[in-house]
Order: sequence, then C-alpha cells, then structure tokens
Amino acid sequence: MRKYSIDTTLRVRIVHRAGALADLATAIGDAGGLVGVISIVSYGEQHTVRDLIVETADDEHTERMVAAVRALPEVELLDVTDTVFERHRGGKLQQMSRVPLKDVTDLRTIYTPGVARVSRAIQKNPDLTWELTGIGNSVGIFTNGSRVLGLGNIGPLASMPVMEGKAVLYREFAGISATPVLVDTLDAQQFIDTVVLCSKTFAAIHLEDIRIPECFVIERELKRRLQKPVMHDDQHGTATVALSAIIVACRATGIDPRKSRLGQIGLGAAGSAIARLAMAYGMKDVLVTDVSPDAIAALEKEGAKGRTLDQLMAEADIIVSTTGKPGLIRPEQVRKGQVIFALSNPEPEISPQDALAAGALFAADGRTVNNALAFPGLFRGALSVRSSAITVEMLIAAAEALAACTKGTEVTPDPLDPKVHEAVWTRVAETARSLGLAGKAQL
Amino acid sequence: MRKYSIDTTLRVRIVHRAGALADLATAIGDAGGLVGVISIVSYGEQHTVRDLIVETADDEHTERMVAAVRALPEVELLDVTDTVFERHRGGKLQQMSRVPLKDVTDLRTIYTPGVARVSRAIQKNPDLTWELTGIGNSVGIFTNGSRVLGLGNIGPLASMPVMEGKAVLYREFAGISATPVLVDTLDAQQFIDTVVLCSKTFAAIHLEDIRIPECFVIERELKRRLQKPVMHDDQHGTATVALSAIIVACRATGIDPRKSRLGQIGLGAAGSAIARLAMAYGMKDVLVTDVSPDAIAALEKEGAKGRTLDQLMAEADIIVSTTGKPGLIRPEQVRKGQVIFALSNPEPEISPQDALAAGALFAADGRTVNNALAFPGLFRGALSVRSSAITVEMLIAAAEALAACTKGTEVTPDPLDPKVHEAVWTRVAETARSLGLAGKAQL
Repeated sequence: MRKYSIDTTLRVRIVHRAGALADLATAIGDAGGLVGVISIVSYGEQHTVRDLIVETADDEHTERMVAAVRALPEVELLDVTDTVFERHRGGKLQQMSRVPLKDVTDLRTIYTPGVARVSRAIQKNPDLTWELTGIGNSVGIFTNGSRVLGLGNIGPLASMPVMEGKAVLYREFAGISATPVLVDTLDAQQFIDTVVLCSKTFAAIHLEDIRIPECFVIERELKRRLQKPVMHDDQHGTATVALSAIIVACRATGIDPRKSRLGQIGLGAAGSAIARLAMAYGMKDVLVTDVSPDAIAALEKEGAKGRTLDQLMAEADIIVSTTGKPGLIRPEQVRKGQVIFALSNPEPEISPQDALAAGALFAADGRTVNNALAFPGLFRGALSVRSSAITVEMLIAAAEALAACTKGTEVTPDPLDPKVHEAVWTRVAETARSLGLAGKAQL
Repeated sequence: MRKYSIDTTLRVRIVHRAGALADLATAIGDAGGLVGVISIVSYGEQHTVRDLIVETADDEHTERMVAAVRALPEVELLDVTDTVFERHRGGKLQQMSRVPLKDVTDLRTIYTPGVARVSRAIQKNPDLTWELTGIGNSVGIFTNGSRVLGLGNIGPLASMPVMEGKAVLYREFAGISATPVLVDTLDAQQFIDTVVLCSKTFAAIHLEDIRIPECFVIERELKRRLQKPVMHDDQHGTATVALSAIIVACRATGIDPRKSRLGQIGLGAAGSAIARLAMAYGMKDVLVTDVSPDAIAALEKEGAKGRTLDQLMAEADIIVSTTGKPGLIRPEQVRKGQVIFALSNPEPEISPQDALAAGALFAADGRTVNNALAFPGLFRGALSVRSSAITVEMLIAAAEALAACTKGTEVTPDPLDPKVHEAVWTRVAETARSLGLAGKAQL
C-alpha cells in the first residue's frame, strides 16, 4: 500500500452542474490522490466554493494532483494549502487567563495590591501554593530535542511542534496545563541541574525526546532529587501502552500473559522500558536482544535473559520489536501461535499481514500503540492525589485500565474517548493512594 | 485616610422590604466597611440573595464587619469569601490549545504523524520556528522571588501569584503568551546559565522581582549572551512609566524637562533605572542620592551627580523618590515650584497633599505610576518586528507614547484602555526599525 502522508486543502469554485463534483473527484483519483472531507464554503448563483482535503504521498505527488485539478475546465482552483502547516501557523499552544480583567477592581485583585496578600499567605504556608497558583495542575515538558520521533537529534527548536502537540493533548485529554521547556544542552548533568532549578514552576516533570543513554541518567537523577512525579514518556508512556496491548492480545487469544515468555527486540528507550515493565508485571520470562551487548547486559542485571534474535524468536511467546529496522523479522523466524507487536514507525519489523501469514496468532504494528493514551491520565492521576512519584505499579494500573477500555477487535482504545483517560487517571490515583504516595509530593 | 486592603464578598439573603438593604449598608458602614459592587444572585418570593463586595482594613476589621452583618435580624449571611483569595483559586493562568482536536484527522495533524513534517521543515530552516510554533509570540518571565513587591526575598513559590498576574496582563493587554519560570537560586551565575539554557523556549526574556545587585549582573550578562529582547521590568518598566509621568507633569506645569534638574532619591533597581533613563532622555542634570555610597558612585561614573538628600532637595527641579521609606522627605525640604514623585508603596516619602502644601507645583505618589502600562507594549513592540533588543531609545519612545495618551488631569493613562498599549507597541516597533534592530532577533 502506498504511504499517504500529506494533507492538502484545495479551495475550488465549481460550476453548478450535476456531475461537476464527480469530474473533480475523478481527476483527483486518477492522479492518485485520496479525497477526504469535502465542505462547502459558499454558494453562488452559478458556482459553489468548496474545500476538499486530499491526501497525497509526497510533494511531487501533490504537484501532480494539483496540476490535474487545474486542467479541469469547470473548476477554478482558488487556493492550495498544506493542512498540517496551516494548522501549525502561530503555534498550537498559548497561555490564557483564567480570571476576568474588565475593570480596575479586577486589576487590583489579580495584580497589585491584591496579589501581595496571596504571596504573603504562600510565604507563611507554602502548602497554599497548591490552591492559590496554577502550579498544582501543571506539567513541565522538558526536552533537548536530541531524539525526536524518528528524526533523531534535530535540536530544541525543531522539537517544539512535538512538545506543543503533547501540551495540547494534556489540555484536551486531561485538563492539565502543560508547558514545553526547551533545554539547549546535550550534557546530562547540565540538563538535570536546569530541570531541578526550574522545577518549582511545575507540579510534575515530563521528559520527552531525549536520546539514550542520557535519558536514563537524567530520569534516574531527577527522580532521586525531586519529590514529585518525573517520567520519561518515550520510555514509560510507550511501555504502558505496549503492556496494555499485550494484555489485550492475550485476552483475545486466550493466552495467560503471566505464564508467557516475552521477547523484546531492541533495547532503546522504549524497548528497555517495555522489558522492565513486563518483568514488573510478572511475566514468566523476559528475553531481550539488541545490537549492543551493553544494553543486553544492563537488562540481564535486572532479571531479563539475553538472547540472539534467532533464539529469542524461537523461545518467546509474545514478541515486541522496537528497533527502527524495517523487515528485521523474517517470516521464517515466526513461530506458530506467537503474538507479534512490530512497533517501529513508519515501517514495522514485519507487517501484521506477513506475521499472520507466517503463523502468528495475533499481530499488530506501531500504529496501534499510540502513546497519547498513557501520559495524560498517568500525570493527571498522580497530580490529583499529589503523588510524590509515578511508579511501576501506577504504570501497570494504567495499562490495565487501558486494556479494560479496549473493546471488540481493537488493540488499544480510542485516544479521543474522554472516558479512556478518565479510567486511566482514576486507577492511577487509586494506586498512588494504596502505595502511600498520595499527599507526599513537594513543590 | 484609613488604608483599605481587603475585599470581602458577602452573600446574603435579605427580606423583601423597602429599607432592608439600606439597613444592611448602614450596619456595614457603621462598622467602617466600604461597600463596593452589589449584585443580585437570585430573587425569591420573600427574599433576595445578593453579593456585596465590602472593603476593610485588615482581618480583624473584616471580622467586626461580618459580626455586625450577622447581628441584623432581616439578613441571613450565607457565605463570606475573601475576593482576592477566591479569584486566585487554581491559579490565574493556563496553557490552552489554539487548534481543534475533535477527530482522528485533527490528532494526526497536530501530533504524529503530521507534526513530523513540521519538525523536519524547522530543522532544515530554523527561521520557520517563528511561523510554525508559538515561540515568536512568547515571553518567559524569569524570577527567583528574591525581591517581590514590598515583601522582599519570599522565594520562588510565593512569587508565583505575581508572575501569573504579569502573564495575565501580557495576554489581556498585548495578546502575548507569557510563561512564568521560577528559578530556584540566589546565585547570579547559576540564574544566568539557567535562563540561557532555557532561552530557546521564548522569543524574549522578562526578568522580574530579582534583588539588587544580582539583577544588574543578570540583566547585563543575558543581554550580552542573547540576541533577543531581555528586560528587567522592575528597572526599566518602572523607569519608563516614571519618565512618562515626568513628561506629563512638565507639560501640565509648563516646565521643559530637558532644561530641568532631576533629583533621584534611592538607587535600587527602579531608582537607578529612572536616573539612567532621565540621563538618556537628555535632562539637564541628574542628581542622585542613596544610603549606599557605592550606588551613588556607580551612577556618577555614568554622568549623574552625587548629592546629599538636603543638597538634592535644594537643587533639583523634579524629584523622584523610590526609597521604601515613608515620610523621608520633610515638608521644609520642599522647594517652591518643585515637581515631586514620591513613589514608594504603600506609603510615599511625602504625601502629595503635604508636598503641595509645602509649595510643590505638582505632586503624585506611587499609585499613579503603574508599571502594567509599560511592559506589555514594550515586549509586543519588540516581538512584532523581531527586534534583537529593547533599548533605551525604545523605552523613551514608550514613555512618550504613554505621555501622549495621558489626558486631562491624569498623571498616567488608564492601563485598561487597549489603545494605550497599542500606542506603546506601535512607537516601540517603529523605534526598533529605525535603530536597525528589526529582524535581528535570534531564537
């Protein structure tokens, strides 16, 4: 299947004639474009102005499709915009006021002189910070842009659209006020010190898109130095969603995950976190492999078993691969009855079709494991009870909540369903309470 | 005059009877409370529920006033809330989305996979950061809470309400997305390094409530290291508004400010910035005094003339005092025809009434010099043309714009008038352009 990655919005003026729109759709289809939403901008006496969203594969393909539309005699092409770029214009996030500012009383209430009483009250009793500022509902999203999506070390500025996207998901899925902070250093110690110095600004710290091995050191040190939730999403958010998908697959196939061997291929940020979470979840055995012997050795110290790829494929019941290497898993390595999650994006280690054809009982790729499912509820659950940490027990609770929300043939639930996030934060908060972490956070 | 500093909202159920509200108002008045806004919450058959905002001097006074209301037979007191604290509950600021997130197309546009194209575009051409992220319209408000209002070193957490207030003013007065960042250190070098490391997050840096002498070092170093607007508001925002007030006072009294001697009493952050701005504005002489000989010596190096308080009062035509010392200026020190701005809050060095009685031609206190007038327009003006700095010329342009907006007997214009801020940012942007700084900012 051809990969479609660009959405283009065409604004066209079309003659009023039965079949005119069909001609347009045909021209686009003949050029290989996929027509999405068609909306009406305005009706005229002899023409209609419409917006059509059309998916194409790449810029060259878009040009060809646009040329085909231009060639139509009854269609006037008014505007061509790249939907994604258009939507990003001016950024996706902004600080807004939560209070009215209409008259001088408002001004004197939210600013001087009124605000001085609030500051003094917090100075006397810092616990009031939770009530009288936005800090208690805030997450700082810290990155240095050193490992962004599949793009690598693109730097802080280029990572900002991803951070703004995360912040939008925090707002829309969990009602959290999240703020990106771009930290311009590749040095782990400098990164750690900067986050610690800024940490009072936020009730929790979300680490994002930081490369290995720095991400491990940074997260460990920040967890040690701060009495508030700290989580590297590329590790634990992804691992949480992966575990929920494993639970769902086991449920669908009648496998008991705790009696199964997990084989984790690739021990980067996501892979090593999945292996660790699987061990914590109590899977019978966790087999791991990676091109780096050091990465395998690190996981072995924690109880995993190092294997070659061939050994792992032969022994494991459930396979998860996060290597970034398309086609790494050959069909002949697949064992009958295996559950296979080939998660690398945009191209998996083995396509679900090929895996199933080779005998797998269940197969899915990275499109099914959307990490937008985990972090909003994890952080909201932790913040709602002022937990001092996000622990592995809370990750497992989140994974189980996600699995419980997954219906029918889905592998993971719909991230746009508000009930899913609520289910996650409810379970996460309960777990924090039962662990005795509630109320232990320090700003 | 008694100082009123607490607004209390009383929710009361009052019997329907002509005169019942008057009885309530009388009881409050007899207890020394000032009745403000009275609104209706609901009408009943025999009662009306109303909210009354009442100003009192302090907590003890509030209690007495509330007790007087409780004693009324026809009034049932339903609720008593502290208006300022109520308005601060949950904080005054929040990150909100600027984009819709209703369906899976939205999700794929603002998050993966769509966002990857935007990140890649910025990586190739970092200049696109201005267009495709919110950074170009953002200001970071950095503080360590070491000198907050008149409260001193109350620390980062207790300073947050002030920072949120500033951010609200940025949003409401200038449409800017401003984000407080609490930096938990009193060490100037550590503060500087932290701001530099985080600086890519924002198009401009607002320094706030940092004590002397660190504030001078921090601002100077950040201006040197960053190619974007950096401004310590307690210095230059205040100085800008003070200069505009001086221009207005001179206009009202027929004095030519450039032929006048300014006497600046108190060389803290605000005072030294006022003295410097007055010199840059071209006042004939700038006389300064302070309890610290070092502070005087520093200003003398830049062209000011050190004086004792008595000398300064005898020689200067326009007096500005920012000492925090109520009553410092004795009426017998006032010279006939002087213009006197005694700016310390909450109590001035000499009250306008006393200054006028002692022969001053014009007198005002700190309530007239609201620094909310300057920073929103200064930063918006600088951001709108991507200026690499906020310079003294831009401060003067802002002060002149404010003075031009000041009508009738006002000393400064109304900060709630949007036209005032627009006038400031228009002049500031023009000035940045004429200085050749437009387009020179680097993220």
